[in-house]
Amino acid sequence: MSEKFEFPAVTPLIASLPATVPFTGPEAIERKTGRLFRARLGANENGFGPAPSVLDALRNSLGEIWKYGDPENYDLIHALAKHYNLDPDQLTVGPGVDALLGLIVRQYIEPGDIVVNSLGGYPTFNYHVAGFGGKLVNVPYANDKCDLQALAKAAHEHKAKIVYLANPDNPLGTWHNKSDIEAFINSLPKSTLLILDEAYGELAPQGDLPPMSEIWPNVLRMRTFSKVYGLAGLRCGYAIGLPERIAMFDKVRDHFSINKMAQIAAFHALADQKYLDEVIGKINNAKQQIKEVANNHGLKTLPSATNFVAIDCGRDGKFANAVLDRLIQQGIFVRKPSVPVLDRLIRVSVGPKKELDLFAEAFASALIAADKG
Amino acid sequence: MSEKFEFPAVTPLIASLPATVPFTGPEAIERKTGRLFRARLGANENGFGPAPSVLDALRNSLGEIWKYGDPENYDLIHALAKHYNLDPDQLTVGPGVDALLGLIVRQYIEPGDIVVNSLGGYPTFNYHVAGFGGKLVNVPYANDKCDLQALAKAAHEHKAKIVYLANPDNPLGTWHNKSDIEAFINSLPKSTLLILDEAYGELAPQGDLPPMSEIWPNVLRMRTFSKVYGLAGLRCGYAIGLPERIAMFDKVRDHFSINKMAQIAAFHALADQKYLDEVIGKINNAKQQIKEVANNHGLKTLPSATNFVAIDCGRDGKFANAVLDRLIQQGIFVRKPSVPVLDRLIRVSVGPKKELDLFAEAFASALIAADKG
Repeated sequence: MSEKFEFPAVTPLIASLPATVPFTGPEAIERKTGRLFRARLGANENGFGPAPSVLDALRNSLGEIWKYGDPENYDLIHALAKHYNLDPDQLTVGPGVDALLGLIVRQYIEPGDIVVNSLGGYPTFNYHVAGFGGKLVNVPYANDKCDLQALAKAAHEHKAKIVYLANPDNPLGTWHNKSDIEAFINSLPKSTLLILDEAYGELAPQGDLPPMSEIWPNVLRMRTFSKVYGLAGLRCGYAIGLPERIAMFDKVRDHFSINKMAQIAAFHALADQKYLDEVIGKINNAKQQIKEVANNHGLKTLPSATNFVAIDCGRDGKFANAVLDRLIQQGIFVRKPSVPVLDRLIRVSVGPKKELDLFAEAFASALIAADKG
Repeated sequence: MSEKFEFPAVTPLIASLPATVPFTGPEAIERKTGRLFRARLGANENGFGPAPSVLDALRNSLGEIWKYGDPENYDLIHALAKHYNLDPDQLTVGPGVDALLGLIVRQYIEPGDIVVNSLGGYPTFNYHVAGFGGKLVNVPYANDKCDLQALAKAAHEHKAKIVYLANPDNPLGTWHNKSDIEAFINSLPKSTLLILDEAYGELAPQGDLPPMSEIWPNVLRMRTFSKVYGLAGLRCGYAIGLPERIAMFDKVRDHFSINKMAQIAAFHALADQKYLDEVIGKINNAKQQIKEVANNHGLKTLPSATNFVAIDCGRDGKFANAVLDRLIQQGIFVRKPSVPVLDRLIRVSVGPKKELDLFAEAFASALIAADKG
């Protein structure tokens, strides 16, 4: 640091943080390799895209983008409330779940407070925890699922302020059903907030997750338009909870942060549930295709209630890393966990058949190349 | 608060904050009155909209909105750097200046730290200061301009961590030239960060503001695509400063927060400087029209280097409030300052001639009605 930079100084907490990008974007890899990816299957996006009705609505609204969006997100919140049979004050909208996670950590965490997450769980959440001075306690997965008993035990032992659970899980795709989740919620300390991140919730088997009308006093439930609705590029997610808890967001949120295109797209996406059914069918077919590619090589996949499939490469992390490197080299963008035990997996997001065919071809040669070392 | 809500509890700082919407959106007024505004001239938007080339680029990119944007904002940052003859590491991009202001306050302010702003200055900045526990010292305007000497004096007296200056100013539209600004920067304590918010910078008389290549160690300079570029609905702004200071944003920013449409629109907007020249001409004509409307009633306007004009209603705040109410009742959305001395003004943003004609007509009858009390 230059002497000049000694003043004005950031806070000691900020000074202590590393500069980080929790996820390297595919664009950064493309810039580094100088080659565009042929298949974009690594960011758990929905390559089938949003409904044509949503694209029409956006096309018709382009003339409005000089206007700030409604800071109260009234239309979208009321549509969501109606859709889920909730009261509007049980919902808040944010510019993506990532941003909402940051706002929640800011609301509940002071430096030194304990937060529990699964070891290998969502890095962006961990980034926010570090960013507000929280201390992370990591609980290993058990049998490729979040270990609910161990998470609750850690919450009690460490008097955790927050426990984070992605259900369905990312990066594994596995999930717990509603009776497990309800028991888990009841098993937590009364002073612990559960962030129940259901970004992939629409892809769980119907009826497996707790009904959306269920509100618990110690839970904030998160959903998004980035995954099944195919709108990752627009940034729109929402949180559901007690009205008193939802009201806290109005103390800290950036009121104009939901861009107008996101407001319009989310509203129309929610209205087109017919398309949603169709796209869920496409996603399930794509998952089946990924599973078959793995099975054809004698490899297993984890059960998935998401828009991606974790393939067990059948050996150690080093081998799976080598497979990943060979896929990247062949222009196939996928990602994998780095934490031991999970690191034997590579995670393939759904996409159109053409891209999955490219993956299948590249995967075959990647396995051979990685095997040769 | 219900007993249930006693646990889990937000931090004492968050608990102490009021739930706030710094600006009531025109949509909320429309819902309340049950009538749509006929003219939208209150949010300092650019009713002339973005360049046709930008709309074309967006139309052609709609098929990409299922993709997350590049978390490094590489293309946009490099285009901005080239445009301003800066190094890319002297720039960061955020989802609007509002969000960047929040990130800066988070970086520099601990509870109890002092922040200096003009009395009646940007409410969203003050909201962020309160949100991180900062203590605000307000410095009155002098002769309808930010009082640079008094701001610097307050910074010294209170050992301020941050001083905020909008130049050109909002809500007044007035501005200081580059020698004033440079002297002001030099007059500040070395431990004070100046946030120099130039959201309206492109509308200042050419050469009046410091050149964009100028970087000071104690300044973060802010610009936006929301105003002259006509992209308020998409949320994209940027900050310029020392590389060491810009690097701090990578410790706390929400990496995927710039939506893909904003990245694309901003990139193309920057490339179309020919349209920018045209729209600046339209904005200046519209400002002239607003000035003439005021002058026709024997009223003065403040000089403006922004996309709005502050009309001095010539009497006290009560009278100007009555004028504003009558304008709102007639379906004309404008805003006004509420702090005494400034509260004699109403602030009219530019827009197409048709909307300004509606304003002119409504203003005449509003003045008469307000005069009758």
